[in-house]
Amino acid sequence: MGEQKKRLQEFLDKIRRDLDRTIEFWSKYSLDKEHGGYFICLANDGHVYDETKYTWLESRQVWMYARLYNELERFKTPEILATAEHGAQFLLMHMKRKDTGKCYLSLNREGLPVKEQRTIYSECFYLMAMSELHRATGNQQYRDEAIDMMKQILHWVLVDDSGLGRKKLAGNMPADTLAVPMMLLCLIEQLTTMDPDLASSYADTEQWCLSQVTKHVQRDGSVILENVSPDGKELPGCQGRLTVPGHAIEAGWFLLQRAQKLKDPTLKSLAIDKFILTSFNRGWDTKYGGLFYFLDVDGESPVQLEWDMKLWWPHNEAMIALLMAYIERRDADLLEKFSTVFNYCYSHVHSRNAAARVCFHVFDNQKNEDSNDNDTQDLHQHRNSSRRPGT
Amino acid sequence: MGEQKKRLQEFLDKIRRDLDRTIEFWSKYSLDKEHGGYFICLANDGHVYDETKYTWLESRQVWMYARLYNELERFKTPEILATAEHGAQFLLMHMKRKDTGKCYLSLNREGLPVKEQRTIYSECFYLMAMSELHRATGNQQYRDEAIDMMKQILHWVLVDDSGLGRKKLAGNMPADTLAVPMMLLCLIEQLTTMDPDLASSYADTEQWCLSQVTKHVQRDGSVILENVSPDGKELPGCQGRLTVPGHAIEAGWFLLQRAQKLKDPTLKSLAIDKFILTSFNRGWDTKYGGLFYFLDVDGESPVQLEWDMKLWWPHNEAMIALLMAYIERRDADLLEKFSTVFNYCYSHVHSRNAAARVCFHVFDNQKNEDSNDNDTQDLHQHRNSSRRPGT
Repeated sequence: MGEQKKRLQEFLDKIRRDLDRTIEFWSKYSLDKEHGGYFICLANDGHVYDETKYTWLESRQVWMYARLYNELERFKTPEILATAEHGAQFLLMHMKRKDTGKCYLSLNREGLPVKEQRTIYSECFYLMAMSELHRATGNQQYRDEAIDMMKQILHWVLVDDSGLGRKKLAGNMPADTLAVPMMLLCLIEQLTTMDPDLASSYADTEQWCLSQVTKHVQRDGSVILENVSPDGKELPGCQGRLTVPGHAIEAGWFLLQRAQKLKDPTLKSLAIDKFILTSFNRGWDTKYGGLFYFLDVDGESPVQLEWDMKLWWPHNEAMIALLMAYIERRDADLLEKFSTVFNYCYSHVHSRNAAARVCFHVFDNQKNEDSNDNDTQDLHQHRNSSRRPGT
Repeated sequence: MGEQKKRLQEFLDKIRRDLDRTIEFWSKYSLDKEHGGYFICLANDGHVYDETKYTWLESRQVWMYARLYNELERFKTPEILATAEHGAQFLLMHMKRKDTGKCYLSLNREGLPVKEQRTIYSECFYLMAMSELHRATGNQQYRDEAIDMMKQILHWVLVDDSGLGRKKLAGNMPADTLAVPMMLLCLIEQLTTMDPDLASSYADTEQWCLSQVTKHVQRDGSVILENVSPDGKELPGCQGRLTVPGHAIEAGWFLLQRAQKLKDPTLKSLAIDKFILTSFNRGWDTKYGGLFYFLDVDGESPVQLEWDMKLWWPHNEAMIALLMAYIERRDADLLEKFSTVFNYCYSHVHSRNAAARVCFHVFDNQKNEDSNDNDTQDLHQHRNSSRRPGT
């Protein structure tokens, strides 16, 4: 038995323990019992330091409670379900514009809109929350919301995006981003998990997504580029050379799910060898550890300030993708890479003082000797409690 | 004579040398002789790695050449003037929308618009470029462009901002940002430097700006907050607690300029003691050195990913402000602080390989032993060649 295989139980125990205390922490501190929904900006001791309700995170929290309720026996409790519905009711009331079907990006504590984004992502997370909660409750309204939103999203993506409100300027280069078809694959997975009979309704869209995602494999399969031309060519400049390792690995996870459903060995290989492994090998910082956020495939200077940050979510996604790939292929190298990410995360997460930290954390490049330094440093390293919503 | 005072000649020599080679580098590599304007994304060896023309930077480059031509004998050459006009002609042709008077944030190589921002800042930099170039050339068109743009900006700020195209949502908290009155003070300084007779036209606006800027001094004068309510109160949440040390120090520089013109000792003290010194003391990282980009005044986690980055421009601005304050007050402590920033910059700028690096650099928290490591690390530390335009 390989070295890492012996650790499988340790991996499971640690992650299960962290999941339990994270759910406990958020269930205890994040519910806004006066105005509904969840507080998102929680400090380590549970106090609320900002009342803004970011809808990506509200929706994901609903989804998370509902998914745990649906899939794990120990979370199948009336409390967990009530906590999910608590969030969903707030979203039903405030998140979606009645006139356009667009969702807001953020709301104030009372649910009044603060920001709207000209993309489809808030809408995707709304759909996922509603769909998963339908699985838990059987409530028809949640199902209808999810299916209607899918129709609306597909209209924006495939037919006419003018409803998103994006200004088109003469110098804009036509570009397709990996995020859109990848997100649609995730939505199809969600909706067909809710109702397998929906698979045929989305079969054509699924094929379209797979061909779109594949366009991003560039330079003889050596890199996944984030943006390509509509006819699948590399674009000039920084936009064209951008690779987002964590994003590509996440796409690999979604592709592998589809490949397993479709029992397609070519697609499995594309998911594991190209999207997951190529991106992991390119994106892993061999000096300090961790996945870079953005890279330029030619090694030029990325224009994003945050390019070399080690953010928590790409590491979570990489662990999921690598473990999924290992289960598919039983290749020791995949488990080795999983444990590399696992070790990095556990040695850079400051979990000794607070239950919250495991959940939301930005890693630094700083060496380990810094990480046990003092509380001020510690506070500074715990620097973001939410995925920053883009604008 | 104090320790730092003995170093004044060293400071001057080093900065002059860097200014000379920086101007030489950009004059050599940044001109787009085919389509006009300047290339902005230059690598260390001078090659262009992206052709996007960010108008903040195009405008500032015009301003910089023109200011050097106007103020420093060794730059008063036909070449420098021609280089400034080369950029200005491109901006006149492509930067401003004929229909609305708004300026674009970025253009493609040919000058077609790529992005437009719903703020006044591109317009401010356009004004500054035109105004300074009028000083150099006497060309009436540049003067007219500057004065017309000032009228337009004041209309947006003081009368009606609907032309900026910002969507107003029910949950938006009325908030005044330090950036707007501070930028207007800078524009008034620019226009009255171009033509001192304009001072009376802008006297009322200047008074309005000074009262607006003063509203941001909060908590018994212990902090400059970036956003306050229209009636000068602290706002709730992260937005209210945000302090941007480099920004406040820059505001101190603009205030001190006005105070010197107005011969106002109270305003001088406000500029030096509150805006410059309070912000410097709060924003300086006593552990690793450098100015933090964003801070929460209560020590909560800032929501901006880049909050603890040490970016090049706040350090430049701090050096200018501290030296200006020292000249005003001849207080050794101010020169001591200047030299602290100077030492930090020179020990974290990787200038041995390339002329470009001094100009555009993002500092890391990493310790000095890393900074002489190897070329890969070096490349990674040189991570951004432009101030990232916000959206």
